[in-house]
Amino acid sequence: MRNITTRTLSLASTLHRSRKTSLSRSKTLIPFSLSTMAAATATATTQPPAAPAGNAATAAGREAFRQSVVNTLERRLFYIPSFKIYRGVAGLYDYGPPGCAVKSNVLSFWRQHFVLEEGMLEVDCPCVTPEVVLKASGHVDKFTDLMVKDEKTGTCYRADHLLKDFCKEKLEKEPNLAPEKVAELNHVIATLDDMSAEQLGAKIKEYGITAPETKNQLSDPYPFNLMFQTSIGPTGLSTGYMRPETAQGIFVNFKDLYYYNGNKLPFAAAQIGQAFRNEISPRQGLLRVREFTLAEIEHFVDPEDKSHPKFSDVADLKFLMFPREEQLTGQSSQTLRLGDAVANGTINNETLGYFIGRVYLFLTRLGIEKDRLRFRQHLPNEMAHYAADCWDAEIECSYGWIECVGIADRSAYDLKAHTEKSGVALVAAEKFAEPREVEKLVITPSKKDLGLAFKGNQKMVLEALEAMSEAEAMEMKSKLESNGEAEFQVCTLNKTVTITNKMVSINKEKKKEHQRVFTPSVIEPSFGIGRIIYCLYEHCFYTRAGKTEEEQLNVFGFPPLVAPIKCTVFPLVKNEQFDTVARDISKALTSSGISHIIDVTGTSIGKRYARTDEIGVPLAVTVDSTTTVTIRERDSKAQVRVKIAEVSSIVKRFVEGQSTWGDIQWDYPAAHGSAEEENAPEENA
Amino acid sequence: MRNITTRTLSLASTLHRSRKTSLSRSKTLIPFSLSTMAAATATATTQPPAAPAGNAATAAGREAFRQSVVNTLERRLFYIPSFKIYRGVAGLYDYGPPGCAVKSNVLSFWRQHFVLEEGMLEVDCPCVTPEVVLKASGHVDKFTDLMVKDEKTGTCYRADHLLKDFCKEKLEKEPNLAPEKVAELNHVIATLDDMSAEQLGAKIKEYGITAPETKNQLSDPYPFNLMFQTSIGPTGLSTGYMRPETAQGIFVNFKDLYYYNGNKLPFAAAQIGQAFRNEISPRQGLLRVREFTLAEIEHFVDPEDKSHPKFSDVADLKFLMFPREEQLTGQSSQTLRLGDAVANGTINNETLGYFIGRVYLFLTRLGIEKDRLRFRQHLPNEMAHYAADCWDAEIECSYGWIECVGIADRSAYDLKAHTEKSGVALVAAEKFAEPREVEKLVITPSKKDLGLAFKGNQKMVLEALEAMSEAEAMEMKSKLESNGEAEFQVCTLNKTVTITNKMVSINKEKKKEHQRVFTPSVIEPSFGIGRIIYCLYEHCFYTRAGKTEEEQLNVFGFPPLVAPIKCTVFPLVKNEQFDTVARDISKALTSSGISHIIDVTGTSIGKRYARTDEIGVPLAVTVDSTTTVTIRERDSKAQVRVKIAEVSSIVKRFVEGQSTWGDIQWDYPAAHGSAEEENAPEENA
Repeated sequence: MRNITTRTLSLASTLHRSRKTSLSRSKTLIPFSLSTMAAATATATTQPPAAPAGNAATAAGREAFRQSVVNTLERRLFYIPSFKIYRGVAGLYDYGPPGCAVKSNVLSFWRQHFVLEEGMLEVDCPCVTPEVVLKASGHVDKFTDLMVKDEKTGTCYRADHLLKDFCKEKLEKEPNLAPEKVAELNHVIATLDDMSAEQLGAKIKEYGITAPETKNQLSDPYPFNLMFQTSIGPTGLSTGYMRPETAQGIFVNFKDLYYYNGNKLPFAAAQIGQAFRNEISPRQGLLRVREFTLAEIEHFVDPEDKSHPKFSDVADLKFLMFPREEQLTGQSSQTLRLGDAVANGTINNETLGYFIGRVYLFLTRLGIEKDRLRFRQHLPNEMAHYAADCWDAEIECSYGWIECVGIADRSAYDLKAHTEKSGVALVAAEKFAEPREVEKLVITPSKKDLGLAFKGNQKMVLEALEAMSEAEAMEMKSKLESNGEAEFQVCTLNKTVTITNKMVSINKEKKKEHQRVFTPSVIEPSFGIGRIIYCLYEHCFYTRAGKTEEEQLNVFGFPPLVAPIKCTVFPLVKNEQFDTVARDISKALTSSGISHIIDVTGTSIGKRYARTDEIGVPLAVTVDSTTTVTIRERDSKAQVRVKIAEVSSIVKRFVEGQSTWGDIQWDYPAAHGSAEEENAPEENA
Repeated sequence: MRNITTRTLSLASTLHRSRKTSLSRSKTLIPFSLSTMAAATATATTQPPAAPAGNAATAAGREAFRQSVVNTLERRLFYIPSFKIYRGVAGLYDYGPPGCAVKSNVLSFWRQHFVLEEGMLEVDCPCVTPEVVLKASGHVDKFTDLMVKDEKTGTCYRADHLLKDFCKEKLEKEPNLAPEKVAELNHVIATLDDMSAEQLGAKIKEYGITAPETKNQLSDPYPFNLMFQTSIGPTGLSTGYMRPETAQGIFVNFKDLYYYNGNKLPFAAAQIGQAFRNEISPRQGLLRVREFTLAEIEHFVDPEDKSHPKFSDVADLKFLMFPREEQLTGQSSQTLRLGDAVANGTINNETLGYFIGRVYLFLTRLGIEKDRLRFRQHLPNEMAHYAADCWDAEIECSYGWIECVGIADRSAYDLKAHTEKSGVALVAAEKFAEPREVEKLVITPSKKDLGLAFKGNQKMVLEALEAMSEAEAMEMKSKLESNGEAEFQVCTLNKTVTITNKMVSINKEKKKEHQRVFTPSVIEPSFGIGRIIYCLYEHCFYTRAGKTEEEQLNVFGFPPLVAPIKCTVFPLVKNEQFDTVARDISKALTSSGISHIIDVTGTSIGKRYARTDEIGVPLAVTVDSTTTVTIRERDSKAQVRVKIAEVSSIVKRFVEGQSTWGDIQWDYPAAHGSAEEENAPEENA
């Protein structure tokens, strides 16, 4: 619902929709089945099996599963509602210690996977942004949602949310609705994003929708700009905004970055940073928030050559894709080979395809389940007119399919917008090995003759002549040659004048050119880091039986890469010698840069395992002798026995992905007995 | 000059000054010699030798040196004025690719050195902050600078800046000033920070200071709040600010973090993030900006036990300290042993001392020169009344001694302020092993008798009785026992009443207590990351002769830890076999996570070395055969010859600090000849 202005300003549609693709947050927050009618049937078949998300097959099961995840996350301080002691602020969350560590690990891996491996130019720009930049990008005029106000209390609501909630509730609670009514309500839900303020207002009136809490009348819908506004400097005269995305910081630096790259294309710039959106009514916890971390890439490429030298590295990947055609014809998403999808034109070009493949690898290596990740192509009505193609990486969680990464070929739109507004040419040049001969249109007006004929209007006529397109000019040329004169519409004078062949000469001349100057296309993968992390939490969470069947123990099965703490060190019993060993191991881990917890409190081992499983610590070292210790793996609960001196190198190799747990089990003897999980007797079986 | 309100509000001084200590940015931006008269003579002797900063001994030399550094930084995109194509915004800068990499390396090392090694709890809170939080912290009322306006144009200036500039110019340009006048102007400069709005205004009038550009009259000075203000949510009714520091996010989460730490003290929380200050007139490039990255630690400790278990690890460190006493008596800073400074009470307590030591290690390991780093203790007039002690890590650069890290013992101030405002008790408890018997004052008013005597005023009298301090109560008790009655001042009634011994009983009773509840003290090291990085640039920069004596080549001698790119890979000549070797080495470096550049353009080796020296790349691999390659070190320009398969592990060990260049030279044969620096013939000598 970012592209509200498609409704009110016909010209504006694409501009705004454009930025929406970088992380619009409306359509994707509901199960995709609701977002287009055509695709509604398709979705059911693409729901993953219930197993990974517990009882996720039913709405109630999903809700219960989400509650377990969220309770664990809040209790263990993965996140905390911000400013809680002051009753908080909707849509603002803190990352507590384990959440902060997960985020830091995700961002480190992002830097390794994208910035380092692709040789990108990383930049870091301020959040405070002057108005002129966001005027050029279109955000000042068009980054809006439609809002209605309770006419008595002044409480604000998103107009589309109210209408959607009304339709959904009616569909759920009134099973005996006439089939035509069901179709109508489904149609409203499906077409919400395309409704104008007037259409939304009319529907709200027609259905008699009132303010949810007070049942008061609502105002007509009107646009509300979602940027946080502020004032830069002491005079109060210079308006600024907190950036709604990080991309503009890269676009305005294009010229310097192109120079830094040796004036060569393609190259990519990247930025990680905070972005801000003053949501009307934040909902769904961590998924729609007012401040969030974005990681964005702008890959600049010659529009005439979108091949990618490393495409072959990803061409053989096969994963779930949901092309436009399949959505429109009611089919389901399909497992396709990336190379084929590019070859047959489903994906517009190799570079876009390459990034889709790299995003797939990034997400799955973090721990996102392959069968709950799909790449959905934008439908024609979701895409800007200038965009060549656009795909969203959507991850399924208890809220439905969530857009977590947008990967768009935005053509030359952004650079052109800033070129126009700033007057600085944001262009690239291809130098020719040999100068090339090109035919150029040359229009040469005769100032003297124009002056005699048009006096004070001379300038307007002259400018209009010079601005003629090639087709117009060639038409005039032929008229002048045949008739000696031609009628000519001068817009700035709002009248038609007669041009004679004395007044202008029009010719095609051959010229030698040494280079081709053009505005690069930009391919933009844009990552909503908070959303990816939330989905990861859901995908990694599971429960298993504790001492009794009733006691359910929570586990976050994070891959070592993202686990907030990599390892715990416990003495088996309180004992000075064991404590010393534990501290020595802790020192070795610290100097290897491995985050860990040492716990010498003497709590039972079973309880300590349960506590650390719940924050997803993959390995636990238990000190039960002064020569060797056991290492226990979280998911299998299997243990090996290793020499004390080897602990930190084993942990390091496991954490950095050089050894799997299987490798470690192969290399070291299994351990039993001394470090049993006394509180988890099912393990002794 | 953050503590402007010390001038206008006598009570406010400490509150505001308090937050100032976390990163005030006034006093430190000028050579310290100017900031207090007493210390003026001292400074000259603590200036480091001229060598490291080139011709840094003179003001002109410092200016010229700074220009070389800044030119290199801007040309190589370490930083870029933000929104440059729109003519920029004062006080906002982008980090370009090498600057962004340096920043990322500094922050990674900060995390390793503080968060990981000290087991701190890292959190990540939003920048958007509701008004109530910053009301409690004092920022809404007192985070101000004094401003004057050009009465005709409305242009704003910082009042203290205008006065200081006037005094400095007079001192510089009028060598024949009377000694009394010189003393007066020096006194004004030294006491600027303590002047009230009225005093500043009077001085501006007295000296006839006008607007610098227009020479128009100036308004009287008045406070301007330095926070960027915004509005949260759609109604416009909820004021918010962009946080001026990250610390408040930690304080409001104290209760949860204390619980997370098992309800045990001490523990530390840490946060890295953006902070915002809407400076009236940003100056001095990267040092006074409107948006910057802070890294802050809040270490919570029992006020009755500020010992630190790891203090012995740092006690033997010796470095430059500038205690209060030495500043006030006109002495210079001294090299002291940290253990002695704590033992003799120069530094207030072990925990504060421990952090001073850790900050020293952090900064020097980054590459800050030891003799251009000092720890300066706050003078009594710089410190809040509640602060136990406060030290700034100051780094000398061409602008003078710059405050880069503040390390303050803020006592219980912040937690108490939020406890009071939020009503949530931010306290800790020490459980006693055995219950302790304590004597408690018990005041028991008799409602009946008070009601009979005071009717409608009963409640006020009752509350006043209950609120008596122990001394007041014991005095009343003895009067009641001797006279049967006592006079009693009830503030809320604004009169004195007579209390008889029927109306209240006052006793001391023995009670058993199981725990002691208290508000923890907080020790706050607060790092201005951008300032540290700028000083690091100056400390690492040097020039050396190129082909000719006139040609000066720039070098950033970054330690491997902070170097933006660790290594370059060049084929010696354009050649397909060498290119393949270079690409293989590049792949190996990538999978080891080492940032590097591969350059197969065939530019001359000398030019490539010069280019990469200028961005501080420590190692260069030159491919001149298909079996072995040379590795060249930046500062010594010495080369060794190694096998291709060993390159990435050698580079990795060097970058991670496991080998020095000396170790590598010991292990591998020196290389000459094939990969000579053809463009830098002085090397062939």
